[in-house]
Amino acid sequence: MKMLKGNMVVAQSGGPTAVINASLAGVIQEARKHTQIAGIYGLVHGIEGALKEELIDLSLESPQTVELLIQTPGSALGSCRHKLSDDDYDRILSLFKVHDVRYFVYIGGNDSMDTCHRISALAGSYGYEIQVMGVPKTVDNDLAYTDHTPGYGSAARFVALATRDTGRDLESMTTFDDVSILETMGRNAGWLTASAVLGKVEEDEAPHLVYVPEVPFDENQFLDDVTNIHGRLGRVFVVVCEGVRDVDGNYVGQQVLGSSGRDAFGHALPTLTAGVASYLSGIVGQRLGLRSRFLRPVLIGRGFTACVAESDRREALLVGRQAVAQLVKGEGGFMITLQRVSDRPYESVTGLAPLAEVANAEKLLPREYINEAGNNINHGFFDYALPLVDGPFPPLARLKGARVGKQIAHH
Amino acid sequence: MKMLKGNMVVAQSGGPTAVINASLAGVIQEARKHTQIAGIYGLVHGIEGALKEELIDLSLESPQTVELLIQTPGSALGSCRHKLSDDDYDRILSLFKVHDVRYFVYIGGNDSMDTCHRISALAGSYGYEIQVMGVPKTVDNDLAYTDHTPGYGSAARFVALATRDTGRDLESMTTFDDVSILETMGRNAGWLTASAVLGKVEEDEAPHLVYVPEVPFDENQFLDDVTNIHGRLGRVFVVVCEGVRDVDGNYVGQQVLGSSGRDAFGHALPTLTAGVASYLSGIVGQRLGLRSRFLRPVLIGRGFTACVAESDRREALLVGRQAVAQLVKGEGGFMITLQRVSDRPYESVTGLAPLAEVANAEKLLPREYINEAGNNINHGFFDYALPLVDGPFPPLARLKGARVGKQIAHH
Repeated sequence: MKMLKGNMVVAQSGGPTAVINASLAGVIQEARKHTQIAGIYGLVHGIEGALKEELIDLSLESPQTVELLIQTPGSALGSCRHKLSDDDYDRILSLFKVHDVRYFVYIGGNDSMDTCHRISALAGSYGYEIQVMGVPKTVDNDLAYTDHTPGYGSAARFVALATRDTGRDLESMTTFDDVSILETMGRNAGWLTASAVLGKVEEDEAPHLVYVPEVPFDENQFLDDVTNIHGRLGRVFVVVCEGVRDVDGNYVGQQVLGSSGRDAFGHALPTLTAGVASYLSGIVGQRLGLRSRFLRPVLIGRGFTACVAESDRREALLVGRQAVAQLVKGEGGFMITLQRVSDRPYESVTGLAPLAEVANAEKLLPREYINEAGNNINHGFFDYALPLVDGPFPPLARLKGARVGKQIAHH
Repeated sequence: MKMLKGNMVVAQSGGPTAVINASLAGVIQEARKHTQIAGIYGLVHGIEGALKEELIDLSLESPQTVELLIQTPGSALGSCRHKLSDDDYDRILSLFKVHDVRYFVYIGGNDSMDTCHRISALAGSYGYEIQVMGVPKTVDNDLAYTDHTPGYGSAARFVALATRDTGRDLESMTTFDDVSILETMGRNAGWLTASAVLGKVEEDEAPHLVYVPEVPFDENQFLDDVTNIHGRLGRVFVVVCEGVRDVDGNYVGQQVLGSSGRDAFGHALPTLTAGVASYLSGIVGQRLGLRSRFLRPVLIGRGFTACVAESDRREALLVGRQAVAQLVKGEGGFMITLQRVSDRPYESVTGLAPLAEVANAEKLLPREYINEAGNNINHGFFDYALPLVDGPFPPLARLKGARVGKQIAHH
């Protein structure tokens, strides 16, 4: 391995997380320690910044600002979702050459790892030496070759606590809704949705039903499930992934999205923003006659500082640091991974996975974490996910509730 | 004042909060110190528990359980929304008499204070001696005669952090939505909605527009406001209260709620659950041609343990304790209030307000906290509300972002 000398470029891609900037801080802090890295540049709005030659000089940021990045949500460099053409890769490599960029760190998910891989592969054919390292980031937790992905733990902590606490809230009202439906993010993978169970201690606590994209969604079965739980408890707390699909692969609730309903002014009803929870809430009302409400926090849980898991923040910082530490050692063409050493106490170390392999793999929720009926999550998932959300959570009270004997005749 | 001896009943009413059980814990802990209080009973599901004679014996709960109540969201006794008839009051007083109840503590909002007041007033005409004390609780913060209401600070902390952090998230995406609309709770009062500004440091950070029920909502003005901000920043973060009404007093978006649109199966589209943010998101898309998304966490922020303000929890516990301390001193017919002693450092003491006065008053957001255009919140509100949400919040990083000079000719 040859030691390169030159500038480093770092960029962020895809949906932000609560800890994506901790990875950026790790990259900057580590890069400052190594003399073979001359300038540290950030791409503005991810790879779009490379196409437009919009770079910022991160060497000029104060140590205090870099330290504050560790607790700052969103993507401080700006992010993008950009599908690259062959021409784009030419332009990116030209840019890197002109600015003497010898190290490229890309913080992102599957698509970003694919971009990393191609840049790495194309550089050779250009006769240009550059070392590339991917830093994993996604709340969806669907990256392969790593135990989990930074960003997931904090987003999962939000889903777990929101479900537990809102479940307690709804449990205490008799005159409220019968059915509550919380929609969670995750287009293909049910990791985030599954995390809804992580605050559950007793059988009848929320969530009562959990639907992930890994199991085809059957509307009639769903209505039966709701009916059963409602008959037993008088209330139902459902968690459903935005990405659930029917047996034919169609997203559930898309018919509402394509609706041509019109309001009193003759304007088409909102279409873009309906989603699966709104749709299911509607059919629960219409076909079961139950009062239903949907909760759709959407992006709120993705970058919410109030729900950051400390282990998640620590690992996000660590993978950023490791990316640079490996690059200056001469490694390139990899994504930094997290390997679990033990569950209790939770411990992890970093590893390396070849970009080529990571880019083409998607890690879905294993079937053994889902119950047989496909409407809830098995206990095995707790062992995997609890350490990632800094669980178990501080306990809540449950009153014993010994009834005082009645002394009045009631009719 | 005569010192009564007998049992105490405590109940919770209306929508739960993140700290309503801290007040319950305060009541129980204080009651256990006083020998003239024999039994401590809880009404199951608020005043409904009195009508059905469903009481639980709180003397049997362990000190550990009572301590855990301080960190438990939801209403541990169960809650209700029940409009009482004259007959109901008869039944309640009969129940209290049969169970030798001499102290009644009701934790709730305006309606509960009205119930307290009537029970107190009617007891006299029954020739039955009972002392009644109200404990303030509502995320809406609309109780009069108190600086603020326990429950508000924690719910406001959720709104403030969700707005700030999701604002950062959206700010970092160029290829995302143009307009995001966060709906907040609060039927008549804009206190919770206003709290969205509390994490804002720089002018162009979220929220850009804030609409409260205290100002009549003008749809065309709203669209102009959105157009202006979008023209300047390319993105708009709107916070709107579920209770905004037009100049005629009609809730905005009710036309959608009454829609007879039908989905592909011919079922009526969801009606109960649409709300103002969904409606506004629709007209932004249709009339301005901008991509829009609504965020509707609904109840999540009301009882979310991840957002509890420590000052709120402490005060919730304190007003519970004070209610009993005052009762055993012979005081009755009041609601415990919070009086602010100083802003920095924040300090408060408790006081007493006559139930008769509290019950018939509603404290709305003062006009001077709202800007002239009626689409944002003035700085004066920060002094009032920041201490209640445990603000100011830990700072976030903002990169200086010095651009690296371009070296490529761009077309």
